Amino acid sequence: MCAHMKEDEFSEWYNTLIENAELSDKRYPVKGMNVWTPYGWRIMTNIDAAIRRELDATGHGEVCFPLLVPATEFEKEAQHIKGFSDEVYWVTRAGGNELDVPLLLRPTSETAMYPIFKLWIRSHADLPLKTYQIVNVFRYDTKMTRSFIRVREIHFFESHTCHVDFEDAERQIAENLEIWSKVSKDLALPYMVAKRPEWDKFPGAFYTIGFDVLMPTGRTMQMASIHQYKTNFAVPYEITYEDEKGEHQHVHQTTYGMSERLVGAIIAVHGDDKGIVLPPVVAPHQVVVVPIFRKDDAEEVLGAARQLAEELDEAGIRVKMDDRDLRPGEKYYHWERRGVPLRLELGPRDMKHGQVMVAIRDTGEKAAVRRDEIVGRVEEMLAEMQWRMLDKAEKDLRERITDLPDIPYGFELEDVGRVGWCGEEDCATQMEVNLEVVFLGEDMDMKGPAIERCTTCGGTARMTAYVSKTY
Amino acid sequence: MCAHMKEDEFSEWYNTLIENAELSDKRYPVKGMNVWTPYGWRIMTNIDAAIRRELDATGHGEVCFPLLVPATEFEKEAQHIKGFSDEVYWVTRAGGNELDVPLLLRPTSETAMYPIFKLWIRSHADLPLKTYQIVNVFRYDTKMTRSFIRVREIHFFESHTCHVDFEDAERQIAENLEIWSKVSKDLALPYMVAKRPEWDKFPGAFYTIGFDVLMPTGRTMQMASIHQYKTNFAVPYEITYEDEKGEHQHVHQTTYGMSERLVGAIIAVHGDDKGIVLPPVVAPHQVVVVPIFRKDDAEEVLGAARQLAEELDEAGIRVKMDDRDLRPGEKYYHWERRGVPLRLELGPRDMKHGQVMVAIRDTGEKAAVRRDEIVGRVEEMLAEMQWRMLDKAEKDLRERITDLPDIPYGFELEDVGRVGWCGEEDCATQMEVNLEVVFLGEDMDMKGPAIERCTTCGGTARMTAYVSKTY
Repeated sequence: MCAHMKEDEFSEWYNTLIENAELSDKRYPVKGMNVWTPYGWRIMTNIDAAIRRELDATGHGEVCFPLLVPATEFEKEAQHIKGFSDEVYWVTRAGGNELDVPLLLRPTSETAMYPIFKLWIRSHADLPLKTYQIVNVFRYDTKMTRSFIRVREIHFFESHTCHVDFEDAERQIAENLEIWSKVSKDLALPYMVAKRPEWDKFPGAFYTIGFDVLMPTGRTMQMASIHQYKTNFAVPYEITYEDEKGEHQHVHQTTYGMSERLVGAIIAVHGDDKGIVLPPVVAPHQVVVVPIFRKDDAEEVLGAARQLAEELDEAGIRVKMDDRDLRPGEKYYHWERRGVPLRLELGPRDMKHGQVMVAIRDTGEKAAVRRDEIVGRVEEMLAEMQWRMLDKAEKDLRERITDLPDIPYGFELEDVGRVGWCGEEDCATQMEVNLEVVFLGEDMDMKGPAIERCTTCGGTARMTAYVSKTY
Repeated sequence: MCAHMKEDEFSEWYNTLIENAELSDKRYPVKGMNVWTPYGWRIMTNIDAAIRRELDATGHGEVCFPLLVPATEFEKEAQHIKGFSDEVYWVTRAGGNELDVPLLLRPTSETAMYPIFKLWIRSHADLPLKTYQIVNVFRYDTKMTRSFIRVREIHFFESHTCHVDFEDAERQIAENLEIWSKVSKDLALPYMVAKRPEWDKFPGAFYTIGFDVLMPTGRTMQMASIHQYKTNFAVPYEITYEDEKGEHQHVHQTTYGMSERLVGAIIAVHGDDKGIVLPPVVAPHQVVVVPIFRKDDAEEVLGAARQLAEELDEAGIRVKMDDRDLRPGEKYYHWERRGVPLRLELGPRDMKHGQVMVAIRDTGEKAAVRRDEIVGRVEEMLAEMQWRMLDKAEKDLRERITDLPDIPYGFELEDVGRVGWCGEEDCATQMEVNLEVVFLGEDMDMKGPAIERCTTCGGTARMTAYVSKTY
């Protein structure tokens, strides 16, 4: 990873990594709508699987709601419409007919789901309702597009839950934080948790928590977000339940969103000059086996390499056998660009010595491992790499956060700042202007000390907050 | 299964089964676009997993192409447009802007994929290209909608392959037939294979093979189809490769489609008066454990039931523990409607006798199984049930096919007929009129004898063909 890349440099590096790893094809003839190649899609679906594991384990049911939302349903929650109406795609015709009610492509699914939640929920016994879906959503974003990071058709995860009261919804948000902490370990992505300020919350939310990753340019990017809706949607969508006293109450709701940006974050945080580097949990191939052979020993070496691959496969390791008729160097290069965690080389000399050479993608190290210990060692090395990648990125993140009890004259913030904030919007705006950053919101992790006074006015700080440039 | 249900009776029965099993919610406010509930969606994704296993094992790469297709790309293959233009949804606006080029929601993905295949394929070394995707597609079908069977947003599987020549594409079609034969075993769905007549092939195809299932009404329904495109799309989309002599050739293409109709077919073929019956391979819960307890022995029985469920889970069986505070009868009823293959009942008497009672959903039988043999027996019983369901449905299908070397005066065909056909379209039309059926096309399985003479004109038959009423 190269800290403090310039924006142009980053863009070029990021795009090259994606092209060289063949993760996505940008040549599709609609702007911001890219083609997922088999390798890129496998990474994405491995991430989806990691998310599903946690959601299923916490009693969420996976659903799938229709893509198209009638204009009449969309228009029920005023803030929500305001936030999204400039970004929606409209279906106005079908076959030869103009539609009576235009349909929009979901930018997110509140307005598709909540008319049905109203029907599903009758009494307190139906609560909590915990659902999620993994679907395509559409946002006609006018900013410059970038693979995985800013696209117009988005591979999207969204959970939606309904609760008897605010407290139970708050418990759900605590569970969501816990889920994110597990998922981020699988993705080897360290993060900052910030409760967004009022003026930057999700359209319609009571409050919003964002998970931000630090990119090589020093800008941060929101990877995931959790929203407390209170009854803001339940009131217009009339989602009520009968409580134990027989009275009708509005449900309290939460949502939780993530997207293909997670792929972008992995590329940006872990990629190096050779290509992408994939955390073993999400890598399509965790191990590639490269036999080193000449014509005269091909049969013997290939047989031994296939045997090796088979043993790894039987142990549940995702292994790729590369027996193509190419020079080993070309194969190394091919799989390095694609970020495969471990490369196992097996040649006649290794066979003679009863060993396998293992090349480790993230550190670039090579080690000889005894053939009869290889399966167990590969399992260990994959687990070590997973932790090492997270640990390294976590340390890097923490080192690049600067506490700012005040802003010295002429100071230029390179990455992330932690500031004290009194709660006045003007003071936050002042920091945004002085540092040329965005006010990300309250630091909810507090891995650093509290900053006691407002960085702008010097008054008592109500909170410590993050600031940074953003994507 | 109730043979020869009348259409009204079937519709009511089918809809009731879906409602009682809570597979889908039809109350979404756009016609033909239904909500997948957690239980229904799990069945669908288990079917997807069965399909993925076969496609991955045969070297297909999973991709994901954009949903929206520019009108300009859609308009390249004349037959294809003709076949679909009445059925497409059009996006004409985004945010506040009218789009310069309207975008359509894919009804299938040829026109999205082939401009990119043109870029991916350069030389014969890039072939065969074997891809598939599982996505939502949209068809503005004006016929009456029916859950899973006729909907406007369709959960869709499509594979697309490119080959050096016609022969290699034919080999792919043979592989697809093999894949279907495996998938249909997982789904316990017997089928007829019919090569469709010229006038009923897929828009743009050189030929089409359909897989039809026999429904309780005696009508057949197409569940899957395979298409040989020859170069019909490669020419307008200019998908060429350089052959070994350095000459540019058009690729030959095939596709293979299936959809959520597979869920509809399972419901219709295997459902009974108590509810749906799920083949173990696709059942969300293969086993439900129902503890039979009173207040005074609750702790002991629940503990033993949980232990039982845990052992089954560890053996890789999908098990649901139902420890709700309801009478056992209510639970039986609940899980019968949902088609769970095996119900395990465990009460104090069973514990005393070291046994578990097993209720088998498809036969309605009950058996006592020794507690210390239960895990192995459950595995066997699930495998037996899978085969028994397929076998029973296969026998039923074969019994309901009538060979028709001629059509006796006043004859009314109840289910499926096999006819001889000379190849003249008029003769096929005559059969359609006389029998009030659709000519499904050439019998490619030939599990019955060849019919030597044309059922209409008595001339030499070029093929034996299926006829039936259809959905």
